[in-house]
Amino acid sequence: MEKERCGKNFKKVMAANRGEIAIRIFRACCDLGRSTVAIYSKEDEYNVFRTKADESYMIGENKSPLGAYLDIGMIIDIAKKHKVDAIHPGYGFLSENADFARACEESGIAFIGPPSHVLEQMGDKLSAKEIAKRCGVPTVPGSTVPIRDAQEAVELAVSYGFPVILKASAGGGGRGMRRCADEQEVRDTFPLVQSEALKAFGCGDIFIEKFLEEPKHIEVQILADQYGNIVHLFERDCSLQRRYQKVVEFTPAFAISQDIREKICEDAVKIAKEVGYVNAGTVEFLVDRKGGYYFIEMNPRIQVEHTVTEMVTDIDIVRAQVLIAEGKTLAAPEIGIEKQEDVKRHGYAIQCRVTTEDPQNNFAPDTGKVTAYRTGGGFGVRLDGGNTYAGAEISRV
Amino acid sequence: MEKERCGKNFKKVMAANRGEIAIRIFRACCDLGRSTVAIYSKEDEYNVFRTKADESYMIGENKSPLGAYLDIGMIIDIAKKHKVDAIHPGYGFLSENADFARACEESGIAFIGPPSHVLEQMGDKLSAKEIAKRCGVPTVPGSTVPIRDAQEAVELAVSYGFPVILKASAGGGGRGMRRCADEQEVRDTFPLVQSEALKAFGCGDIFIEKFLEEPKHIEVQILADQYGNIVHLFERDCSLQRRYQKVVEFTPAFAISQDIREKICEDAVKIAKEVGYVNAGTVEFLVDRKGGYYFIEMNPRIQVEHTVTEMVTDIDIVRAQVLIAEGKTLAAPEIGIEKQEDVKRHGYAIQCRVTTEDPQNNFAPDTGKVTAYRTGGGFGVRLDGGNTYAGAEISRV
Repeated sequence: MEKERCGKNFKKVMAANRGEIAIRIFRACCDLGRSTVAIYSKEDEYNVFRTKADESYMIGENKSPLGAYLDIGMIIDIAKKHKVDAIHPGYGFLSENADFARACEESGIAFIGPPSHVLEQMGDKLSAKEIAKRCGVPTVPGSTVPIRDAQEAVELAVSYGFPVILKASAGGGGRGMRRCADEQEVRDTFPLVQSEALKAFGCGDIFIEKFLEEPKHIEVQILADQYGNIVHLFERDCSLQRRYQKVVEFTPAFAISQDIREKICEDAVKIAKEVGYVNAGTVEFLVDRKGGYYFIEMNPRIQVEHTVTEMVTDIDIVRAQVLIAEGKTLAAPEIGIEKQEDVKRHGYAIQCRVTTEDPQNNFAPDTGKVTAYRTGGGFGVRLDGGNTYAGAEISRV
Repeated sequence: MEKERCGKNFKKVMAANRGEIAIRIFRACCDLGRSTVAIYSKEDEYNVFRTKADESYMIGENKSPLGAYLDIGMIIDIAKKHKVDAIHPGYGFLSENADFARACEESGIAFIGPPSHVLEQMGDKLSAKEIAKRCGVPTVPGSTVPIRDAQEAVELAVSYGFPVILKASAGGGGRGMRRCADEQEVRDTFPLVQSEALKAFGCGDIFIEKFLEEPKHIEVQILADQYGNIVHLFERDCSLQRRYQKVVEFTPAFAISQDIREKICEDAVKIAKEVGYVNAGTVEFLVDRKGGYYFIEMNPRIQVEHTVTEMVTDIDIVRAQVLIAEGKTLAAPEIGIEKQEDVKRHGYAIQCRVTTEDPQNNFAPDTGKVTAYRTGGGFGVRLDGGNTYAGAEISRV
């Protein structure tokens, strides 16, 4: 790999996000000596994250908090006004939004993530699956084009074998997904998923897949520079989920053999290469009880669970994201990965997410005041958090 | 080294200490699956540390807090009553007290530290210095026997060259030490140090040393098993002190050359071997501006700053202390150090101590209520603390 192309250091980086991931981004920028800018909704006026940036600006005073963080026009305006040269989208919100990436590109602001055309390709699960097939990576048996109606869904389900899962093409994070155990359930569920998808994502496209029983959710961390150099940072096991949300993640994934691990990691790199991937991303697989593995999707952004990979590889992934967006090669001394073999792993790491939930309402996200706060600590314990102190108000988004 | 001698696992370990180090000890024991016992003074009834142990018992209800934690008889009684098989003394309090170590030995309780006869040797600075001289390790020019009077002090000071320092033989942690710039100051200070030493330590023995200007305080972490196997875990720089108390410590010590580093580490092992040292200990040196280095003392106990060594060597020192006291060799799989070369170091670590102090009273230790508490966090940040939460009462000792 070349070391020469080193790009130009950003002067000012904005995090178009809030809470934990905004703080994570500011820390990485601070370590690199880049100035930082926070944006925050009216509700987040007293949220800790904005105090961790060098500058902070309120957005969307008349909007809902969610609306504020999704307001592409206003975010770009603030960025331009305050001479921001790069925006890190974090996770959620606009992180996988190709329009936002394009708006950044067109404003001469670096989007710290893949180019907008890659986001377009990967954002749609069906086209992501096509890509996997093109490079010979196994995928879960399922429809490759949106299904027309319940009848077609039933026919496909019968051909894959039950159970199956109906998924909104534009969904994610567990939203717009329903498992069906038999023909009747497919018939009943299809219109529900379709109307849910239309409402939530503005697109009613549905596809259907074989549902793997008790699969392990194994994902591979990828780092790719702007010059086609791509490495993996090994895998994580994120099988422990509630309401399709990850709860506990760890690495290495000891449920899989070394043979499967190597194959999955290589295939993840293949997929990233095929789409011309740039920056940090995660390639997700399901591994069934017999060791068969299937590509499911690629997350073209940083993930909450990236920290376990950092702990065992000693590679600061968010820092690497900024450097890659600046135009550094993976082999540049700041990142220091000349070849795949330079990525070494030692030990084990486990992440536990502590979130505000309402146990009386199926553990739905909740708001309120943190009345007591005690941290874990000691050798090998890492804390990443947003409003982690007694007295903090957890506000809605 | 042999792997066969593996000793017998402790069932129950007591921490004869409070706060941060008690929690640190309980964590190490918990990792090893050993049960834990806390002791606490009346004032520490609501202190977090006692909730981190499996059992906790109040000591010295009618005593001052300091008196409670120094009450050897009562501590041994509680330990025997509750079938404790080992006591970890932490730092401060009874950690360097040969009488306490002997009381443990005589009660059939393992003292997690060196044998009482080693504590006796090392506790006295003069005899420690003699040991260093015996194995050819340089020491600071100074008196080797207690000095009789101010006149002798002046004569010696003139022979070493000014400035000099007067030290109580039994002192430590900055107590009982005074710097003198000229003959007159030696004459005036001598009686003060002597009476201070008598009051504080019950022993008026004073010695005198050349005072090194702007020296670096470099110390070497030692681990020694019960069978004569001794390794070092490299050095720390603890030069940044206030009121002779360490404030910031880091490793590696970049102020010294690789050549000096190797010599100091080897000499530390020599001294530990010479005294038949067992368990974790620290050999302290001063390094002057010209790279000359001088042994000053050995701390026969765990130190607050041990954590920076843990971070760069991946060796859990407190865990190793327990295993060594159980009779495991360094080469045992639980510790895994077959030879010096197995101790590897990567990266840098820095520790900052946050303590309650009264800035209007020369930063003397202070008590009170913690009204707000926010932690550092993120990649590479480790937290060790005692009463680290909003609302905690910091009580006197």
